[in-house]
Amino acid sequence: MPNKIPHIVIGRLPLYLRVLNRLHKEGKVYASSQELGKLLDISAAQIRKDLSHFGELGKRGTGYQIEFLIDELGKILNTDTIWKMAVVGAGDVGHALANYNGFVNRGFEVAAIFDCDPDKVGNQIGDLTIKDCSEMQAVVDQENIKIAVIATPAEAAQQVAEDLISTGVKAILNYAPIFLKVADDVHVEHIDPAVHLQKLSYYLE
Amino acid sequence: MPNKIPHIVIGRLPLYLRVLNRLHKEGKVYASSQELGKLLDISAAQIRKDLSHFGELGKRGTGYQIEFLIDELGKILNTDTIWKMAVVGAGDVGHALANYNGFVNRGFEVAAIFDCDPDKVGNQIGDLTIKDCSEMQAVVDQENIKIAVIATPAEAAQQVAEDLISTGVKAILNYAPIFLKVADDVHVEHIDPAVHLQKLSYYLE
Repeated sequence: MPNKIPHIVIGRLPLYLRVLNRLHKEGKVYASSQELGKLLDISAAQIRKDLSHFGELGKRGTGYQIEFLIDELGKILNTDTIWKMAVVGAGDVGHALANYNGFVNRGFEVAAIFDCDPDKVGNQIGDLTIKDCSEMQAVVDQENIKIAVIATPAEAAQQVAEDLISTGVKAILNYAPIFLKVADDVHVEHIDPAVHLQKLSYYLE
Repeated sequence: MPNKIPHIVIGRLPLYLRVLNRLHKEGKVYASSQELGKLLDISAAQIRKDLSHFGELGKRGTGYQIEFLIDELGKILNTDTIWKMAVVGAGDVGHALANYNGFVNRGFEVAAIFDCDPDKVGNQIGDLTIKDCSEMQAVVDQENIKIAVIATPAEAAQQVAEDLISTGVKAILNYAPIFLKVADDVHVEHIDPAVHLQKLSYYLE
């Protein structure tokens, strides 16, 4: 693809979307790349360059119309819909995700939660009943699930990833502290608190 | 500061460190910027440019000596020590963090966990006893805590941030789905699963 947009650029778009939603909630109508840059610790030039991959999204002088840019970024990131997700692992992280209220209006919903421990299967977390891992394929098909979250211990994560991929899932958010080996057509994001903490420790002392 | 390194560059260093540690574990001795770039979905030129902020860390031809670069990045990110952290909120996320085994050898340790709910105070999570929020200042002083993690519901997070900052904490990792308002000298990182999920949904369909 000649016009393939770098992953690193795609990775910044959700940050732009988040700050735009905040400004929108605060009643702001326009935002300049300078303002966004200051809020995000990213240079204004970088923001303009990133967004210019997707056409003329702002105007010189007035900047970006916030509601318009939120809509455009939603279309670009495919979050103008609701993606149903499966969570695998009904431990602390699984519970936290099933009860998380940070997904509202952002394109995602936990539709199913699985665990392989028979003692957990059948228990409720909010509106969800914990299902056995053996039901994964059936539930993924029935609920049209495209994204899965791995919230298992590190030792189980690679096998769970393979099981998920065999059901047709192509996008995985991994909370387990392990690097997952997957085929090139599967996308993995890793929630790794140490990476965030190391950004903080740089600034300390 | 004339030589201030952009935050966006600092933010990539922990990713480099993570992949270098993985290669080191696999027995590799050298890595080129091309190899690192491929593993990280970041251009080789970007990696070379980022690392060049910190001097001559690699050699043309042979690339980066992995163990050396791990050491250098550890010094740059101040993770060649152990930072004691306080976690506030002993719910699902607090439990997950207290039990997390992804911090080992990466510079961080949960040294204390707090909750304001008297029903939780005194309970054990692994080796830690949940402490009352009123003890925050004393524990932060005693344990020399510089980093805190907010794992409370969204409604409580801003007040908790202010309480933490008043104890002298200057670095906060925030799990609550809310933007924290803090003074300029306080550093905040936000663990926001929706941001990671939006990177995934871009590639779907």
